[in-house]
Amino acid sequence: MQQLKSFLCGRWQSGADPQTVLHDATTGAAIAQTSSRGLDLGAALRHGRAVGGPALRQLSFAQRGEILGQLASVLVTHRDHLLDLSGRNMGTTRGDGKFDIDGASGTLAYYAKLGQTLGDRTWLADGEQVQFSRSKRFVGQHIWSPRRGIAVHINAFNFPAWNLCEKLACALLAGMPVLAKPGTATAIVSVRIVELWQEAGLLPDGALQLLVGSAGDLLDHLGPQDCVVFTGSGSTGQQIRSHPQVLRYNVPVNVEADSINATVLGPDIAPGSDVWTMFLAEVVREITQKAGQKCTAIRRVLVPSAVADEVQAELVARLQDARVGDPAVQGTAVGPVAGPAQKRDVVAGLQNLALHAQLVWQAADVPADGCFVATSLFRTDAGAAAEYVHDHEVFGPAATLLPYAGSADEAVDIVARAGGCLATSVFSDDAAWAGHVVLGVAPYTGRVYWGSSKVFDQGTGHGAVMPALVHGGPGKAGGGEELGGERGLRFYWQRTAIQGDTQLLRGLVG
Amino acid sequence: MQQLKSFLCGRWQSGADPQTVLHDATTGAAIAQTSSRGLDLGAALRHGRAVGGPALRQLSFAQRGEILGQLASVLVTHRDHLLDLSGRNMGTTRGDGKFDIDGASGTLAYYAKLGQTLGDRTWLADGEQVQFSRSKRFVGQHIWSPRRGIAVHINAFNFPAWNLCEKLACALLAGMPVLAKPGTATAIVSVRIVELWQEAGLLPDGALQLLVGSAGDLLDHLGPQDCVVFTGSGSTGQQIRSHPQVLRYNVPVNVEADSINATVLGPDIAPGSDVWTMFLAEVVREITQKAGQKCTAIRRVLVPSAVADEVQAELVARLQDARVGDPAVQGTAVGPVAGPAQKRDVVAGLQNLALHAQLVWQAADVPADGCFVATSLFRTDAGAAAEYVHDHEVFGPAATLLPYAGSADEAVDIVARAGGCLATSVFSDDAAWAGHVVLGVAPYTGRVYWGSSKVFDQGTGHGAVMPALVHGGPGKAGGGEELGGERGLRFYWQRTAIQGDTQLLRGLVG
Repeated sequence: MQQLKSFLCGRWQSGADPQTVLHDATTGAAIAQTSSRGLDLGAALRHGRAVGGPALRQLSFAQRGEILGQLASVLVTHRDHLLDLSGRNMGTTRGDGKFDIDGASGTLAYYAKLGQTLGDRTWLADGEQVQFSRSKRFVGQHIWSPRRGIAVHINAFNFPAWNLCEKLACALLAGMPVLAKPGTATAIVSVRIVELWQEAGLLPDGALQLLVGSAGDLLDHLGPQDCVVFTGSGSTGQQIRSHPQVLRYNVPVNVEADSINATVLGPDIAPGSDVWTMFLAEVVREITQKAGQKCTAIRRVLVPSAVADEVQAELVARLQDARVGDPAVQGTAVGPVAGPAQKRDVVAGLQNLALHAQLVWQAADVPADGCFVATSLFRTDAGAAAEYVHDHEVFGPAATLLPYAGSADEAVDIVARAGGCLATSVFSDDAAWAGHVVLGVAPYTGRVYWGSSKVFDQGTGHGAVMPALVHGGPGKAGGGEELGGERGLRFYWQRTAIQGDTQLLRGLVG
Repeated sequence: MQQLKSFLCGRWQSGADPQTVLHDATTGAAIAQTSSRGLDLGAALRHGRAVGGPALRQLSFAQRGEILGQLASVLVTHRDHLLDLSGRNMGTTRGDGKFDIDGASGTLAYYAKLGQTLGDRTWLADGEQVQFSRSKRFVGQHIWSPRRGIAVHINAFNFPAWNLCEKLACALLAGMPVLAKPGTATAIVSVRIVELWQEAGLLPDGALQLLVGSAGDLLDHLGPQDCVVFTGSGSTGQQIRSHPQVLRYNVPVNVEADSINATVLGPDIAPGSDVWTMFLAEVVREITQKAGQKCTAIRRVLVPSAVADEVQAELVARLQDARVGDPAVQGTAVGPVAGPAQKRDVVAGLQNLALHAQLVWQAADVPADGCFVATSLFRTDAGAAAEYVHDHEVFGPAATLLPYAGSADEAVDIVARAGGCLATSVFSDDAAWAGHVVLGVAPYTGRVYWGSSKVFDQGTGHGAVMPALVHGGPGKAGGGEELGGERGLRFYWQRTAIQGDTQLLRGLVG
């Protein structure tokens, strides 16, 4: 059985027994083990701060970007190998695996390019000089400079490549060293990626460390210049936010947590039209892709009551064609969920959902072994009043149809009922109606996707996170924000207002 | 005895006994009482969300700015009255009172003008359209729109006018209703300001509520679209950050807390020079103004060892001239601290400071009655290794001299030792040396003030917070950020990425 090691303080290290076992999601067989017990995590954080930070900060944005570009190239070179590992560890179909691996290399490449754009500097000015009324000589200038601590990244199990890379791309380009902890159940891909990077010798010493297994006492060692970025469950997010060291030093914490995303079909969309088809394809993809294990996946499907039965029939027809089974078999649409613990969570969630909404369809012929879950479609006519549906994210291949009368305000109220989402989509060609919904859901959503006939064949998809756009959501979705081009770097920076003589500041800031 | 009421749900309300007593800081006499016991704070938050929010959001930035301008005018009209109240309640000299009252009206006026600049819109675009590679038609656009909840402002006792107004200026201009809670000990000024505004009928119903006395169960009623902005002690900041509702809904919390600010005299500054004089005047003002009760006040004075004795002698000479006494008497430089509780805290802090640093001078002839504290100057040669000095803010008229050898790196290390500050100042004409210190302390500081011979007669001062510049600091200083022009509004907004057809998005966002 493979022993997964952590890469800390410049060397690969194994923790003491007992070990945590990782499974092949398709067969359920144990395939690897790991432990972080006894590893000196305080030393790892100090190593990042003392060695990795200074090394990164002396590089320009262009130089940091160049490193990111090389990291991306390694992923491209070893793509097939990583896709195999992903399929074996977490049961992804080849398409699901690509979404993760190619998303990772694409995001690294995006930030590599941004590094070139930011150029030969090591920190940035924010805005122009501010003049005060009483003097023309004495002015203010804001700057962004990298925090002097270490960025702790606690990643989710569902994207072992992309989640690792999208976070570290921003931190490293910003000039902060990283200690990343992947979700243990699917850590094989994360570990292999860091091994490949280490073998290629691309990163300055201390710039990137990897902790595999339990976080142990990691957070006890946080200091006032550190920060934490977390993707995962709301309850773990709460634990991090309320950790004594986080509170003591006001350590910035970015959380991306439970999100019960919605899509809204506009009343103007006629059955059979391009947008109708686009909408159906989008919902099916969001339910089936990665077996529904995407933080941006559609969980609530708002459809005008007048066409609810028709939408339901069409979705069922398409979902019936999306076979659940061994991801290695050609034509499989839905693989297993990522591991035994994930399967238990999803099955429990589906049982609860069935208490509050009607199960209108469920996939048959689902393998009993391994971590397979039956694709499921629910429906409730309770709208915003529905219980459970708006409150609990079932992180698997399932969604709930919510018929509504067709008014924009009603749609906004139903979407808002979840208390904050990562992604909401609206499908409509009625600019006024859709504009009302888009602006109405905006305060409750990190990203709004507007599908219309003008872009029916061009969209990037409801669930795809683009590095140029912010990813995160308010309220229950965590209240955080990642990516968004340069915006994603600012979390790792301190903004400082500098006041002084206008010429001296120009000499300093440029 | 005056009964201070809360303004909640559109009417002035008194809480049940027992009452909290407010004092005349100069005489120690009880002058007012208040209680929030039994007030329905959940109803107040709902009133703000349901009535105040929609009313504000239908106004344009220009209209909201116009209201802020009218609020500022009321303060200007009633300036003398408010200065009298401030002197009576918190023992401010006329100059100290102006710093608060004029700071309040000035900040409101600044944001009134910003409202005019932002113009006839109700929310803002953030950046330009982002094009994705695969399509020219399908693009992304970020927008900022106001959160749909209520902003809870928990203010500090030391600036009952300015702290109230700088926070609400940003929130109201951003389009969020406010419930403000002033520091109880000095709430008379805050209450009177809101009374004057109410009498003038300037604010939409529900846009501004005032809670006087204990916060009670206020935070238990927070929802996912609300936010909290707090100025005060680090321990209360921790309580707010770890409140169950804050954690449950990831409520954004902005904290401005303990800050052990520093000033650094450069080794190039010759005794008797303009910058030398500027430096001494700055230190004396920061120790004496508002009896040292400013979150930005200088607590640590770094001076080159070679001139430490000379600086000390000059400071003592100037501090001896700064008489401590009745603020109503012409020529008094240092009034009492704001109340009996504040006096107890400061006296305890001075006693602790004396255990870890040498008391080199203390004011004599300090009135025994009322809330007076002797102005005090300490000194330690322990630099970054000094205990207590870098860890505990003594919120009164005191500072500690810290001689250092003269190297820029050493100065940065000593400043950084406090784990995060609101304001740091550097006095030097050596552009390279000072630039090194300015950039070195930037990650640990919200605002850096560079005094030089070019601006010796023009600076706004180490301690003055300007609305155009961010106010806040990392780490122990709370990790927050207020003001900074439009930057200060963003805390009250949700940033949302919108994806769709380029023409449809232009129609929506403009």
